[in-house]
Amino acid sequence: MADSKVYRASTTAPVNIAVVKYWGKRDPKLNLPTNSSLSVTLSQDDLRTLTTASCSASYPAEDVLILNGEKSDVSGARTQACLRELKARRASLEEKDASLPKLSTLPLRIVSENNFPTAAGLASSAAGFAALVRAIADLYELPDTPSQLSLIARQGSGSACRSLFGGYVAWRMGDKEDGSDSMADLVAPAEHWPEMRALILVVSAGRKLVPSTSGMQQTVATSGMFKQRVAEVVPAHMAAMEKAIAERDFEKFAEVTMRDSNSFHATCLDTYPPIFYLNDYSKVAIRIVQMINEAAGKTVAAYTFDAGANPVIYYQEADSSAVVGTLFSALQKATGWKEPTAYASMNPIVALGDLAPTLAEGVQRVIMTGVGQGPQKTDQFLVGETGDILKA
Amino acid sequence: MADSKVYRASTTAPVNIAVVKYWGKRDPKLNLPTNSSLSVTLSQDDLRTLTTASCSASYPAEDVLILNGEKSDVSGARTQACLRELKARRASLEEKDASLPKLSTLPLRIVSENNFPTAAGLASSAAGFAALVRAIADLYELPDTPSQLSLIARQGSGSACRSLFGGYVAWRMGDKEDGSDSMADLVAPAEHWPEMRALILVVSAGRKLVPSTSGMQQTVATSGMFKQRVAEVVPAHMAAMEKAIAERDFEKFAEVTMRDSNSFHATCLDTYPPIFYLNDYSKVAIRIVQMINEAAGKTVAAYTFDAGANPVIYYQEADSSAVVGTLFSALQKATGWKEPTAYASMNPIVALGDLAPTLAEGVQRVIMTGVGQGPQKTDQFLVGETGDILKA
Repeated sequence: MADSKVYRASTTAPVNIAVVKYWGKRDPKLNLPTNSSLSVTLSQDDLRTLTTASCSASYPAEDVLILNGEKSDVSGARTQACLRELKARRASLEEKDASLPKLSTLPLRIVSENNFPTAAGLASSAAGFAALVRAIADLYELPDTPSQLSLIARQGSGSACRSLFGGYVAWRMGDKEDGSDSMADLVAPAEHWPEMRALILVVSAGRKLVPSTSGMQQTVATSGMFKQRVAEVVPAHMAAMEKAIAERDFEKFAEVTMRDSNSFHATCLDTYPPIFYLNDYSKVAIRIVQMINEAAGKTVAAYTFDAGANPVIYYQEADSSAVVGTLFSALQKATGWKEPTAYASMNPIVALGDLAPTLAEGVQRVIMTGVGQGPQKTDQFLVGETGDILKA
Repeated sequence: MADSKVYRASTTAPVNIAVVKYWGKRDPKLNLPTNSSLSVTLSQDDLRTLTTASCSASYPAEDVLILNGEKSDVSGARTQACLRELKARRASLEEKDASLPKLSTLPLRIVSENNFPTAAGLASSAAGFAALVRAIADLYELPDTPSQLSLIARQGSGSACRSLFGGYVAWRMGDKEDGSDSMADLVAPAEHWPEMRALILVVSAGRKLVPSTSGMQQTVATSGMFKQRVAEVVPAHMAAMEKAIAERDFEKFAEVTMRDSNSFHATCLDTYPPIFYLNDYSKVAIRIVQMINEAAGKTVAAYTFDAGANPVIYYQEADSSAVVGTLFSALQKATGWKEPTAYASMNPIVALGDLAPTLAEGVQRVIMTGVGQGPQKTDQFLVGETGDILKA
């Protein structure tokens, strides 16, 4: 019976870590940002969301979303905005071509799983919304480009728009009121600069002494210096970063990355009441990056922090010994090292002294990854041919 | 023999803690600031420098300065600028009145002692240069007003200019190139608002994981947002703070104090490489102040941080129970409480939970003080009638 057919599409989508940060909305409803941003898409070998979108007339009437094994509310404005837009685009195709099955009218069953624990403190919403939008677009066979889909993903979670591309990705803030020009585009594919690596130090949650309840809109409303970040600092960082990427100039890439992270966290501190994401372990990691660069005589490592205490350290493959070798000397007991025997034989470029045990106290896990590809279609499904929910 | 006469003058001078911060010089040589600032002078019952200035033809030819029992170098540009200016003013008096002894030609012997340990982490240079300038001005019987003397003290240490007054003191940045209008003036005497109290939590130095080697000029040179602090944020804070003081409006005073501290530390973090003064204990103290204010239903406490991790908490005498009672509940083992028995009987306004032992881990000492008077002439001398050096 055609009625009971289950239509399916499955995709993976990546995490991205910004080097010019998104912080502040000029339109909270449409998720329109106060400034452009730029990120590196991380390899899905290490961090990815797998999402299967399916629809069937045999499903109960309500759309269903299952995230990491738990039923998730789809009635929120952000999820609804994505589903509504995607269905409308499918409906428009169906109107033009009567032979197409009326998928836009069928209930959705969407199942999604991350290959990294929530405890890692990585924001999973970017990969999650990118995968959701990409999977449904594939299910609906939409002809939209990744940039066009990024307009939809952006409404789910701002930074999700950047996870529709691999490599080096900009989110152009745009200036239209309806947000129709606030979308992601590709600055350079991963192949342009494949040597970019990222080492994430997962700072144990137990150290989070002060809860971060406030958000970016509190910064927009109260920070006396935020305006200058938006008006001058970020535009300069965007231009310098695009040039650094075009020229594969790691020293410039690193400087802008560190300056922009500092600037973003400074606006958090300038919020009233202040927002703190960096803790004493974060600061130790910053100091260690500085020591590695001083010892190397050039900038071989760059730290950046999202809205959390975890340092993400960018470096180039060729500098693994200086960067990974030195951090491994402090963190050999942490989990997540890919080739611990190799790192143990590397000589740290600088002796870390007391900073080593202090960092080790706060970091029990690392994630080793690097620049990677955008969403990938896959034949691994989380929804079976009969609509049953599968495990990854 | 007149030749061997020892001329002496002795003064005390106070510490001040800014509520609108000085950070950044537009002229490093003259110590001209990028912005005005405003401070509360703290009581000399608790924190003061005692300085005796003396001169005598019987002294060896070189000027001598003894700080806390140790001979200190007087050849530095900052000390020399102060001594040169003071001697020039005395010489000018001597020129006009031939009957005056020629003190300007005699070697100086200056002895200075703080009543608080350097380990307390309080910048002692403000009280030190204020006392030095005031004591020599008294020795030389200069007719200059405190504002005029503040021009000299400023060249020793910027914030010293504010320690020439008691109460609530502004340092007007001025706009002349020679710095002749960059001086302190009295916003309000201590008597205008005598209920202002200050509780200083001394965060143990052992927690300083990352050294702060850079200084304010690094911020001026590299912070992308510092310009907005100087151009907009501080002028607004100065105006609001002067109004709050005039009206004895503690809630407004507190808000501006906290916002300005946040803004100052944000520009430190926005420095490249970043400067960190706040640590995890500082943040716990900020959170506790927020909890006290939330529980009180109004702002009864304000935190501020100088270039260090120590919270200075301003509050009004009438709110001692809420502020001191609550902090004492976490820190009863710390030294420095003036009336521990009384505080123990106060009910904390809010239960601090895990924050209490965390704060206690970092704070072993408190200093209880409040708004106080400016420099005071004293007959306690650190140089004897024969020029011998005495102990305080």
